[in-house]
Amino acid sequence: MTAAPVPGSHADLLEGKEVAHMATIGPAGEPHSQPVWYLWDNGRLLLTHTKARQKYRNLQRDPRVSLSILDPNNPYNRYLEIRGEVEDMTDDPDRAFANRIARHYTGKDMPPRPGEERIVIRIRPTRFLTYG
Amino acid sequence: MTAAPVPGSHADLLEGKEVAHMATIGPAGEPHSQPVWYLWDNGRLLLTHTKARQKYRNLQRDPRVSLSILDPNNPYNRYLEIRGEVEDMTDDPDRAFANRIARHYTGKDMPPRPGEERIVIRIRPTRFLTYG
Repeated sequence: MTAAPVPGSHADLLEGKEVAHMATIGPAGEPHSQPVWYLWDNGRLLLTHTKARQKYRNLQRDPRVSLSILDPNNPYNRYLEIRGEVEDMTDDPDRAFANRIARHYTGKDMPPRPGEERIVIRIRPTRFLTYG
Repeated sequence: MTAAPVPGSHADLLEGKEVAHMATIGPAGEPHSQPVWYLWDNGRLLLTHTKARQKYRNLQRDPRVSLSILDPNNPYNRYLEIRGEVEDMTDDPDRAFANRIARHYTGKDMPPRPGEERIVIRIRPTRFLTYG
């Protein structure tokens, strides 16, 4: 499937380290909103997550998502909204991706928690909306 | 209708000046995410908006919302999600509320744009989810 073209005016926000907020659809069709780390990689947004939490189940039921990212230098006037669909969710058994995204944000690996199973969520953008 | 009780551990985020991100439901049941200013007032979240934009139409169709608010001092580990419903949307003809919320965030009134009609969106929280 083809992804939407990246808007050059706001491509910097895809490469940045701002926390994105992701909207998903819950069991009764209701919206949920949660902060997420993201990495922009080869035309896809990649997230790390665990199998245990509701967001994973939500995305299995309905793969549609929207993420909004503020410009940290101009948070009241400039942002990007990315609508898309989960293309796949794959295991991250050696935590390679979780550590990669944690190093992007914090400079350190992600401390493991007992029993957690990390996955990689890959999102194909279907539409970019730019503001400011 | 009764609102959910505010979690004391995260009440500070309701009083703060962080930009919230609000998830709404679009015409095809898909999620949208957008940054919003908010004021916490007497058990309700108040937002300013214009009648012209899609979020207003989305909320007329489906009043369910979710807002996530990061702790600006601990953005990777502490946040609040507020699920709720739009209780009403009322006109703000003299921009009293738009100016009040702009002063909360910027210290100044909100500059008017030609032809814009401001409204006040009042949200009744139905559930608070706390993290960190």
